Amino acid sequence: MTTRYKMTMAYDGHLFHGFQLQPDQRTVQGTIEDALKKMSKEKRIIVQGSGRTDAGVHAIGQVIHFDYPGKTIPANRMILALNSMMPTDIIFNNCEIVNENFHARYSIKGKWYRYRVSLDHFVNPFKRFYTGHFSYALDVGKMQEAAKDLLGKHDFTSFAASGGQIEDKVRTIYYVNIAKDEKENEIVFDFIGSGFLYNMVRIMVAALLEIGNGRRPVHDLKRVIAAKDRQEVRQTAQASGLYLYHVFYDEIPQKYRQDRHL
Amino acid sequence: MTTRYKMTMAYDGHLFHGFQLQPDQRTVQGTIEDALKKMSKEKRIIVQGSGRTDAGVHAIGQVIHFDYPGKTIPANRMILALNSMMPTDIIFNNCEIVNENFHARYSIKGKWYRYRVSLDHFVNPFKRFYTGHFSYALDVGKMQEAAKDLLGKHDFTSFAASGGQIEDKVRTIYYVNIAKDEKENEIVFDFIGSGFLYNMVRIMVAALLEIGNGRRPVHDLKRVIAAKDRQEVRQTAQASGLYLYHVFYDEIPQKYRQDRHL
Repeated sequence: MTTRYKMTMAYDGHLFHGFQLQPDQRTVQGTIEDALKKMSKEKRIIVQGSGRTDAGVHAIGQVIHFDYPGKTIPANRMILALNSMMPTDIIFNNCEIVNENFHARYSIKGKWYRYRVSLDHFVNPFKRFYTGHFSYALDVGKMQEAAKDLLGKHDFTSFAASGGQIEDKVRTIYYVNIAKDEKENEIVFDFIGSGFLYNMVRIMVAALLEIGNGRRPVHDLKRVIAAKDRQEVRQTAQASGLYLYHVFYDEIPQKYRQDRHL
Repeated sequence: MTTRYKMTMAYDGHLFHGFQLQPDQRTVQGTIEDALKKMSKEKRIIVQGSGRTDAGVHAIGQVIHFDYPGKTIPANRMILALNSMMPTDIIFNNCEIVNENFHARYSIKGKWYRYRVSLDHFVNPFKRFYTGHFSYALDVGKMQEAAKDLLGKHDFTSFAASGGQIEDKVRTIYYVNIAKDEKENEIVFDFIGSGFLYNMVRIMVAALLEIGNGRRPVHDLKRVIAAKDRQEVRQTAQASGLYLYHVFYDEIPQKYRQDRHL
């Protein structure tokens, strides 16, 4: 008998070699599986994430599931037990017992990524692990206008780094918001979509920054999408600015369905 | 011939063993002196800070001075040269050529320290190096009321950790502000004073948190100050929440002279 747990977690990615288990590397999945192994005395309890995050990428709302053997541990006890075994760069914020139809990856309805870009002239020591950095002129209005071209269902081949193993490059972007955080002197990009290809958010951010800086025409992304060629965007924004912000397992709320207005 | 440079800097203290030079330890002073040695080919150029910061303590506006030998390098060149040699956890934000009457420590008119306390239920992975942490109930109004008892000229023996070498424990606190940052879910403490004893800010914060939590009467600090006994406050808030925010070399602006109303 096993019990399936769905857990929501945040992690500071800067000291991890990404989410996915790799031998002899410090990874998020490996850290959790080590704890579950100690707790359960099992050989291995597989942790399934909503998806991978790369080395240096952070999570505010990553979701995992796993099947824990033996007598059911209440959810509030499970979260305390696991948090007590986690290093300080991982925290579980929520735990639910779910039925076996729930799958952290296959049950996804959408994902929300956030990307933070610091505009400080010099790289701010307090943000070096937590933001990207762009100290050239930026027109936020141009980026907002350009972002509309990303909305809806498209083949995003031009925004997929090699290394992804997925053949089908069609995804739907539901929502894009680009805003200046005056207090932090940052630009905050939010993207909600059905899913994202390998490095897709970081490549979209790089392209939008080029538009904001005037190096690309405002509506160039239409052409880039149509080209289906990764060579159209050679830049990838740094891992340090990227956050897996939320995973949707219910329908995307209407307020985030900008694509409905297309 | 030497030229005296005054430089303002920020650093993320979490990977330093404090400001002050120590053999075989990574320190802020040591890092800067190493760079100056390489630049100048001198045996040693002494870096004088406005004061020390402990291991894990941060700076937004630390100030140093040093005397650089040979032909004068313009200030804008000096800052570029030094920043290019710094690790990413140190940044120089300002550089001025000053006359030999200026001394980073002896010319001080006052110092501003900030202390950040995260109220998150669990320790937030993104704040573990950058805030203190207090997850019990807090009454900000009580702390604000209590802080008034710190204003003015007092013997702060009760707030001085052993380890300080200074005999005279009289200091003047000009300004205290305690505010909730709703967005960050933090309490931010600001203290401006003529100077601060060893660990004084962290001990004051610990005492104020006890008052905010109701473990001490609101006006207990009057009694604590009068007692001149460190045993009156046994706690010291964590280093991770403390920032040397600004050093004043001119008279403290009137808006920060709350002590004038006493």
